[in-house]
This record gives sequence, structure tokens and C-alpha cells, in this order.
Amino acid sequence: MLKVAVVGASGYTGVELIRILVGHPEIEICCVTSRQHEGLPINQVFPSLTGFCELICEPLNVEAISRRADLVFTALPHKSAMEVVPGFLSAGCKVIDLSADYRLNDQNIYEQWYQTHSSPELFDEAVYGLPELYREQLQSARLIANPGCYPTSVILALAPLLEHGLIDPNSLIVDSKSGVSGAGRGVKLGSLYCEANEGFKAYGIASHRHTPEIEQELSGLSGGDIRLNFTPHLLPVNRGILSTCYADMRESKSTQELIDIYHLRYGKERFVRVMPGNQLPNIAYVRGTNFCDIGLVSDQRTGRVIVVSAIDNLVKGAAGQAVQNMNIMCSYSDALGLGIVPTFP
Amino acid sequence: MLKVAVVGASGYTGVELIRILVGHPEIEICCVTSRQHEGLPINQVFPSLTGFCELICEPLNVEAISRRADLVFTALPHKSAMEVVPGFLSAGCKVIDLSADYRLNDQNIYEQWYQTHSSPELFDEAVYGLPELYREQLQSARLIANPGCYPTSVILALAPLLEHGLIDPNSLIVDSKSGVSGAGRGVKLGSLYCEANEGFKAYGIASHRHTPEIEQELSGLSGGDIRLNFTPHLLPVNRGILSTCYADMRESKSTQELIDIYHLRYGKERFVRVMPGNQLPNIAYVRGTNFCDIGLVSDQRTGRVIVVSAIDNLVKGAAGQAVQNMNIMCSYSDALGLGIVPTFP
Amino acid sequence: MLKVAVVGASGYTGVELIRILVGHPEIEICCVTSRQHEGLPINQVFPSLTGFCELICEPLNVEAISRRADLVFTALPHKSAMEVVPGFLSAGCKVIDLSADYRLNDQNIYEQWYQTHSSPELFDEAVYGLPELYREQLQSARLIANPGCYPTSVILALAPLLEHGLIDPNSLIVDSKSGVSGAGRGVKLGSLYCEANEGFKAYGIASHRHTPEIEQELSGLSGGDIRLNFTPHLLPVNRGILSTCYADMRESKSTQELIDIYHLRYGKERFVRVMPGNQLPNIAYVRGTNFCDIGLVSDQRTGRVIVVSAIDNLVKGAAGQAVQNMNIMCSYSDALGLGIVPTFP
Amino acid sequence: MLKVAVVGASGYTGVELIRILVGHPEIEICCVTSRQHEGLPINQVFPSLTGFCELICEPLNVEAISRRADLVFTALPHKSAMEVVPGFLSAGCKVIDLSADYRLNDQNIYEQWYQTHSSPELFDEAVYGLPELYREQLQSARLIANPGCYPTSVILALAPLLEHGLIDPNSLIVDSKSGVSGAGRGVKLGSLYCEANEGFKAYGIASHRHTPEIEQELSGLSGGDIRLNFTPHLLPVNRGILSTCYADMRESKSTQELIDIYHLRYGKERFVRVMPGNQLPNIAYVRGTNFCDIGLVSDQRTGRVIVVSAIDNLVKGAAGQAVQNMNIMCSYSDALGLGIVPTFP
Repeated sequence: MLKVAVVGASGYTGVELIRILVGHPEIEICCVTSRQHEGLPINQVFPSLTGFCELICEPLNVEAISRRADLVFTALPHKSAMEVVPGFLSAGCKVIDLSADYRLNDQNIYEQWYQTHSSPELFDEAVYGLPELYREQLQSARLIANPGCYPTSVILALAPLLEHGLIDPNSLIVDSKSGVSGAGRGVKLGSLYCEANEGFKAYGIASHRHTPEIEQELSGLSGGDIRLNFTPHLLPVNRGILSTCYADMRESKSTQELIDIYHLRYGKERFVRVMPGNQLPNIAYVRGTNFCDIGLVSDQRTGRVIVVSAIDNLVKGAAGQAVQNMNIMCSYSDALGLGIVPTFP
Repeated sequence: MLKVAVVGASGYTGVELIRILVGHPEIEICCVTSRQHEGLPINQVFPSLTGFCELICEPLNVEAISRRADLVFTALPHKSAMEVVPGFLSAGCKVIDLSADYRLNDQNIYEQWYQTHSSPELFDEAVYGLPELYREQLQSARLIANPGCYPTSVILALAPLLEHGLIDPNSLIVDSKSGVSGAGRGVKLGSLYCEANEGFKAYGIASHRHTPEIEQELSGLSGGDIRLNFTPHLLPVNRGILSTCYADMRESKSTQELIDIYHLRYGKERFVRVMPGNQLPNIAYVRGTNFCDIGLVSDQRTGRVIVVSAIDNLVKGAAGQAVQNMNIMCSYSDALGLGIVPTFP
Repeated sequence: MLKVAVVGASGYTGVELIRILVGHPEIEICCVTSRQHEGLPINQVFPSLTGFCELICEPLNVEAISRRADLVFTALPHKSAMEVVPGFLSAGCKVIDLSADYRLNDQNIYEQWYQTHSSPELFDEAVYGLPELYREQLQSARLIANPGCYPTSVILALAPLLEHGLIDPNSLIVDSKSGVSGAGRGVKLGSLYCEANEGFKAYGIASHRHTPEIEQELSGLSGGDIRLNFTPHLLPVNRGILSTCYADMRESKSTQELIDIYHLRYGKERFVRVMPGNQLPNIAYVRGTNFCDIGLVSDQRTGRVIVVSAIDNLVKGAAGQAVQNMNIMCSYSDALGLGIVPTFP
Repeated sequence: MLKVAVVGASGYTGVELIRILVGHPEIEICCVTSRQHEGLPINQVFPSLTGFCELICEPLNVEAISRRADLVFTALPHKSAMEVVPGFLSAGCKVIDLSADYRLNDQNIYEQWYQTHSSPELFDEAVYGLPELYREQLQSARLIANPGCYPTSVILALAPLLEHGLIDPNSLIVDSKSGVSGAGRGVKLGSLYCEANEGFKAYGIASHRHTPEIEQELSGLSGGDIRLNFTPHLLPVNRGILSTCYADMRESKSTQELIDIYHLRYGKERFVRVMPGNQLPNIAYVRGTNFCDIGLVSDQRTGRVIVVSAIDNLVKGAAGQAVQNMNIMCSYSDALGLGIVPTFP
């Protein structure tokens, strides 16, 4: 049994990691940490976990945790993560970091969008944890930078088109919509029920921090320097991201031709479901699961292709992808412990 | 492998049965039926099932299905169920019927609240499928009448009090609230999004058909004839029932004393979670699972006890309980295939 | 033009007062206060108000406000209210206080459920602002204690039955459900979108502070000392309270007979709508308005009457009723400025 | 008093027309029609209207209605509208048609996206009812084609940019999101609560019927032939449309420069609110009202401008705009009867 620690267990990503890990046959959660709820059983913080995980929340003591854990999931805000990740690595733990701290490979860009970085020497080593792109490198990784939720939905939606040079990389427009859990469990005005319910808005236009992460990965796929428009919106649902992506086609392809290309690209990927031509993704069809559903339409009238992807931001966009990465790191099957069937409705 | 058929697969109870059954290690779904979607793969009806179940919807042919299935789940409306259940039994299948047709054991009461019954001779044989009350009889049953969603939440909430004679059975008031999936997937005005969202109402006051079912079972537990008030309400959520039950205590007990009694009663039941004195159930904590969470308060000021129970109406209130019953019928462990962890948020 | 001040303008009750008052033909808002947003135009706090009210939020300075305002609405938490209400009165302002500080007429009971009171000498003078009960006293009041949201829904639902002695006052059970705005705009975990959405729970069983307020008023109506069970629940909607009230009838009356009694009692009340026998209230039908809709059923089987009432907790349960009280205080028509038509859906 | 008829009163647009019209000081509703609810008082169909409008639903008899009404609102599906509009006009009524039947001015395009048209001779006469563009023509109109909900939100968002030639008209991408009431009150699977709640999807990509309507009006503004991508999405809220529009700027302008242009363009329009640079629209801020809120960002990194607009699809997107058009037609002030303050939350 692999011993894993969940650092930052009292957020929505933390509880989601625990939800998935308690059903995983090859691991054992040896420790959960929460500064705020130190001393409390985690199932008092999240009564949903009663009967599954009743560990006491510990303070974040790198040394103490390293002695017990083989692998650590750090589910902390950016900046807090970089304060502990190097310590866990030095102590011999593998680390899957769910923050933004090791996702970018250019320190300047990181510091421009976030703040000063205290361990940029790890940038080269950290592997970007998108299995559909980096499976090989992940197998031998010691530090995995788990992708952002929006970037996961966007990169998977566009990778096949960019890899085949089918679209103009300067024409990209990405309009994304995320459920409220994406804002975390911190108590802030904008996350209140009455502020979000029956509402809908864009936010962070032309300035959201996931923009450089998306651009870095899409640029890598296209071979050029991509700048795109990424507009996030706040959706009145608990979970789910839907990204609607627009691009000018370089040569005219029919919807079916493009779907065939996606099937070829993702045919062996357990967690990407390419939809038939008469169907489009819905966040309701992936709820609680590690799937990314993709649908697309080629618009002959305008020469554009519209690709729509749906994920659960807390699963494929966070905890589920982290467990998939752990599976790859540990040579388990990708889907071990992730065979959750979507709950509909 | 046990071969099972899901008759009436295109409703919410049908898709929920499939969701649970595809993860069950000892069974194989051999057939799904839907008159409306005959010829279509079930995952075109419910894209969430893609990759898990892609069987073609068949017409409801009792003879053809009986040849292939060992056990049949009938997820049909009342009256439609009684038209096929006797045939399945005659052909040697075990049947778990999710309709109301075999839940009442008094034909007069059935016909008073529903309509004429065509196979009342099965009333004696049918076992009421509430494992926490009838586990022994269920083991050898051929026909199981799966309980209604509201009755499940109410009977489990009140059983310990009635079994110990702790409350006045004539004082019972039950105020229940159910998510919209309880109304099924039929297209009707009252189930439209805009009619239910941001709304809340009581319905069927003093006339809901689950009343005699609740009274039958509670009367059995108390040894007398119980008449109670049961008021259902429509809650703007997809899933979940919360029942708030009021009763006059015969002798004063503290909250903790009563909780202890519930712990004793349900200690060995995998799917009943009795909450500590400082917590109360929330439908969000049982979503997607077969749990019934129970909390209670003894009000010394008024001499009443208030018991609150929460279930997922589609799981413990329908498909999950049906699978639990199948497990008991087949001598599997109660929880086989039902180890789903609640998804929160 | 009457000059009014809204003290505590940045909460949900505050913005609702402003929404209603800007449409009132006889008043002018001369001042809005908010400690948190001091110096900011109120329409930057609530962009919905742009074009209607763009006053700058001021600090709460009793003296300065008293010089400009004829009447003050204090929309502060209990305890904060009592710190300023006596000052406004001394300075010659009329006050409508939306907190709980002057609703109870027994200091002991107040201090038992809340905390020490610093101006109990005002208890006798304060008039409980439920126009359907105290219209006459309100006309000459200097200080009005605007009722709590739950109490408003419960008292209006039960008054006719108690006034006519039709029910056993010791049998009362009240099961209420409120939208999330009832918890205010303060940032706390339980008010987060993901904590409330798709959830439902009871809270404060046998201990909610609105209990003594309900008991005080119902006792007054019945002539005896009433103790009842009041159970609030948190409903995943922005606005609305639905109260389901149960009582044993002293003599058997039909549903229609009871409805007739309610029609007689409330026939002249603009804001109480008694529903016909085949209809039940829905919070969606009163949204944004000052109505209290009431429906009822007499259950001959159990001898109980079930009364259901629906209000908008921010309107009839707070700001709307406060304006109705102001109208009465100022000898305007009850409904002046309150002719809002419900928005459905 | 102007006598108006609401034809098709039992849909969401119908009830919304009535909600607004009962508060209008210069008109009287003389007739409401509903085939489905003929003979029933409209407040039994919509209990929210009790006390405001209790007219009996009549069958749709053009002759009988024409004798009583000066002006008719036809709130019927396309195709049904064209069957009665010519009759009302011949009988001397003014008509405001809320269907799509008279919005397009090219019969070929209409028949390509809809079906055969039976009164194309009215195309020239019908005035497209967007006051911000056609106020002058509307004053003398006999037949007004009330705009579609999506087109209203998109045209108002983009008009100033196109009028000033600030953007490349071939670069337009419009990503719109609408609440469920946009699908009407018809009972269909996709409008069920459980199908829409906690879900989100795109639909009608590259094929939605509002596309030619948007293109017609934007082409008129730009002077060239515009083809754009318009992608509607279904939002789990009752009301509201948010459109996020992307365009390449022809010359670089700052956010503030563009906002100034919008202020100039819409400064005298009562129902367009241009937001300051640090704010973005939210459908929650316009709920129940006739406002169109517009915010924008100039992205110097990509050279694109992103314009976001928010309306209530049932008000500025339907009934409210219809009343605004009536006001203009009748030489009342634009805002008469439309001074509704947004309800937040």
C-alpha cells in the first residue's frame, strides 16, 4: 500500500482528493492536514466522509509528514505550496502539487502573473501533469505540477487541431464558464449563495492567471508563440467547466472529418470522450468523474471550427487528474480508483 | 455472473439503476427496455453512460427477457408494473419492483389510494424491501416491493422510537421535502425548470399516496393503528429527501439518550449513519449514495422529539435500495457495488 | 416629501429598502450608511441600483443623520441597533427598527435568548410592526419594532384560528423553510454557494431566536401561554419563506369553512392573499412583493388543520413590511410604493 | 386609456407582458387569450397575478378582439403569429408582434431559416422594434417586429463599435448564454428542471435562427455583409442573457476611450447602462427590468475588444421592449410603466 498525505484537506479540492482516494485499492491515506480545523476529525469538517475517512486534521509539519508518507498531494493556494514542496522532495517524498506554483516553465512569466518564486530551480524538473500530453515524462517524475482547471479543459479541446496544424493559432478565442467551487471554500463575498445564484457574469477578462498557462501549453503544441483571448465566467452550479473555443480553420474540414481526427488522437485515452456529430457536451454528463467530453462543429459559413469541452473542475480539473497522475507515477493503470460513473441527474 | 434486466430504463430510476449496476462486480446487465427509445443505445438517451453501458433499448417483451435474465428490476409506473410482474415470476425470474404495486398488504387500501389491482394474490408473497426491517424475509424472497422514497426516509427516522414505545403514535407529524427528480422524467408543466427553480411549495397535503404505505409500516412497528399527517414539499434540487418528524415523547429522554438508542438499533446497518448531537443531516451529505443520515433533538420545553432524516431519493429511496435488496436476495454482502462515497459539494 | 435614512444600507435588507423606497412617491432618501463601504456610492456596492440611487455611503453618525432625516430605518444586527435607536428617538426622529431589539416585550425573555439590553425602557413604547394585528397602535407610534421574517409568516398563518379558538394552542408545530438571503450578506461558510446549493437541512431546532417572538404574539392572540415547536430549514433559493403549520382542531371544520374564516379576517388586508381550496402557496408567487399568501387544508382523517403561508423574507419579512409600517405611521395608504407585481418565473 | 390585448397570454412572455402592463398608467388590458386555458381566469394559470389581473382567458378570435382593442401584442410562436397579424392590422389595430415572423426583411432568408411565409408583403412595413436604433420609424409604425432576445443583447453590445468602424466586421464572435425561460413554457424534455439544473451546454452551434437576425442588423450598421459565429448556451437560471462578444480592433483604443464612445452613443437612452471600467455586467443586476447593461475591455495584448452585455430575456428581450415600443408608438415617454427597480438578490 502506498502511503499518501493530503496537505490542505479542508478545501473543496482536499475533500475531493479524499473522496477519490478512499476508494483507491492501492493506497492508504496516512495524514490529512488543515490549519483551520487542526484537531478535528475530517468527517466533522465534511460529514459526507463519515464512515470513509475519520482522520484527525493535523498541522502542516513537513518533517513529520515526510516520515509517514510516500507521496504528498499539496492542495494549497499558490505561494503557500512553494513553501513546503521543496521540503517534501528533499525528504524523499513524491509530490503532486495542485497549485499554480510549478506549472509555468518560465520564471519571468510566473512572477509577472503571480509573485516572486522561491524555488525556480524546480521548474525544469516539474512535469506538467496532463497525461494526454506528457504520459511518458510523468512515469518518472518526482514533482508533478497538476494543471489548472480551465487549462485542462482548453488544452484537451484544442490539442488535436494544433498538432495537425489545422487552425490559425492567432485566431484563438476561448470562452469558459466555471461552477462556483472553482473559487474555493474561502469565505468571500463573491462566493456567497445569493451573489452567485440566478446570476452570471464574466470576470478577469484579459487578465486571468490561467491565460499564460494555456498559452504555454498551446504554444508548445503549435510550435509558435500563441496569444489568445481567454474569458472566464462564473456559472451558478457547484461543479463543472464548459469551454467554448473558436478558431479559423486553415483548410475546410467537415464536422465528421474533425471528429475522426479527435477519435484517432484520443482513442486510447480512458478519460476523453469524443462525442458523435449530433451531440454536444454538458457539464451534467461528467459530474463527479474524471472525464473530459469533447464535441465540435465545423461552420462552413464562417470557416471556423467551434470546439466545446466539459469537465468537472474538481475532478479532471483537479483531484481526479492528480490521482490519474499518481497512478501513472506509480505504474498503476490510469483509471485505478477512478472508475466513477457520472451521476445524472 | 447474475444476469439482470432493467425494465423501464429511460426514467431517472432506470438510469440510476444502470449507474449503480455497471459498477457491481457480480452482475451483468443483459437487457434494458424503453418503449419510447426502442432501438437507441441507452447512452444516446443518457450520454453520461457512454463508456459504461451502451446496450440498445428493447421493447418490453416478458418472454424474451425472462429467457435471458435471472433477476428483473421493474422501474415502471404503478399499474404498468402489475401488468408484467406476474409474468416474470411465472417464467422463473426474481423480481424487484420499484413501483407501488406490491408495497401495501391490504388490497382495499391499495384500491382506495390507487386503482383496481390485477394480481392481489401476490400481496402475501411480496416482501417490503426495507432491509433494516425485513432483512431475514428478503433473503428468501422471490418478489420484493421496493419501498417508496418518502416512506424510506420516514420509517427509518421513526422505527427506533416506535419499537421502544417512546412516543405517542397518535402525535406523529411528518413534514417532508423532496428534490424534483422524485417527480420522474415525464414531461409535465410542474417539472419544468422555471416552475420549480427559486420556488417552494407543499403539495398533496393530506392526500399523498405514500401516506398509507408509511402508516402500514409504522403501525406494524408500534403494534397499533397509526394515522399521521404527512406533507410533501417540492424542493428546488435534483436529488434528496429530508423528512422532519415530530412526536410527543411518552417519557422525557435527553437528546444523547435517544441518539444512543439509535446507535444501538442501527449500529450494524451499513447504510444508516446516526449523527452526533451537535450535527444535523443535510441532503448534500448523502448525494449519490445509499445512506440514510439521521439526526435528532429532544425538546424539553415542549416534550417533543424532532427526528430529521436525509436520503438521496434516487438511491436509498429507489435504485440503491433495490440493489441492496438484490444483494440480500443473492446472499452477497449488503454493500456490494454500493460503496459510493458522497460527492460534496 | 418625507426625508428618510437607511442605516445599514449594505446588507440585503438595506438594498431592499432602497429598492422599494426609490419608487415611493412621498419620500426621499436623504442618507444611506455603511461602515464597510464608507465613501463609496451605494450603486457601486449594488450595481443594480445604478440610475435609481447613487448616494455616497456615510458613517453612522446619529447626530448628523438626525438633523436631516424625519424617519430612520435601522437595518442593523440586534445589539448594534439598540446602540443607536434611543439617540435617534431623542433627536426627534421616528424609527423603524428591523432588528430583534424591540420586538419582545419581556426583558427577561430578551436577555435569555439574546444578551443584556441597554434600553429596556423602550419596550413598552415600541409597537410590534405587524399591520394586520396592530394597525391602530402603529398610526401613532414613534418606534416600530419590525417583525422577524419567520414570525411574520407564522403569525399571519395562524392568527384567524387562534382568534376564533378553533385549535388547541398546545398542539402547534411549525415547520419553516427560508431562502439563503435570510442569513444576511455577511461572509460566513454556511452562506457560501457550494454549501447551500443542492443542499437542504434543518438548523437551530428547538433553539432558534424567533421562537419566543412567535410565542409572544400567538400567546397574545390565544389568551394563553403558548409553547410550540418551530423548526427552520435552509432552502436553496435567494428569497422566500414557506411555513407549514400543524394544529389539532378543537371542532371539525371543512377546508372551505376555514378558508371562509380567513377571507373574513383578511378581506380588507391588501397584502394577505387567501388562496382558494384547490391551490397552495408557492414562494415563487410572492417573489419581490409584500404579499403573504395563505392556503390551508383540513384533514378529517387526523383532525388537524395544515396552514401554509408564503412570503418574501426580504419584503413582507423585512423591508416591505417596514415601508408598510412607515405608510401607516405617516397616514399614507398601506400600499403606497408597494404595488410591485410578482415576477414569475 | 389605450385598450390592449395580450394574445398568447399563458406563456412566459405573456405573463410578463401582463405583469408590466397592469402597472402602466395609460393602458387597460381588455383581453387575454389562451387556447389551452380558455375559460380560466388568468390568475389561476399564474397565481402570482392574483389581485392584479383576473381576466378570463379567451379563444383567439381576431374579429372579436379587434373590436375591443386598440393595440394587440401577439406573443405567439413564429408561424402562428403570421396567421393572425394581417387580420388585426386590417381591422385597424396596431400590432406589436413578439414572434420572429416580421423581423427579417428578406423573404428568402426568412424561408431558409424558418418556413414559407404567408404575408411577406408586410416585410417592408414592419419596423424592427429596437428603439435605440429605430426610434423615429417606430413612432409612426403600425406593425412592430419586436426583436429576438439574443439579437437585442448582441446588437446593443456592438452597435457603437460598428457605427464608428472601430472593428473588423469579419472577426465577430458572439458567445451567448440564456436562462431557461428563453425556451418558453412548453413542456419538453430539455426544459425539465433535472435536465437543466446543475448543467450547462451549448446548443444550435452555427445553426441558431437568431443568427440571420443579428447579421441583418449588424450588417445594416456596418454597411457591409456580416457573417459571424453565434453560439447560444443554456444557463441554469430562470431569466437573463449574457452575451460575450469578441472583435478585432481596427486601431488600438483603450478601455476608457471605448467606454466614452459608448456613453456618448447611449447617454440619452434610459435603458442602456454603460458600466465603468472596473465593473462588468451581471444578469442579476438587470433581473425583472428593461435594462441592457454593457461593459467592455480592450485587450492590448491581442488587439481585440471584448464587449459583454446583460439583459433580462423576458423584459428587454421580449415583453419590456414591447411595452417600450408601445410607448414610442403612442408618444408616451419611453419609460412609462417600465420604471421597475432591479430586485437583487
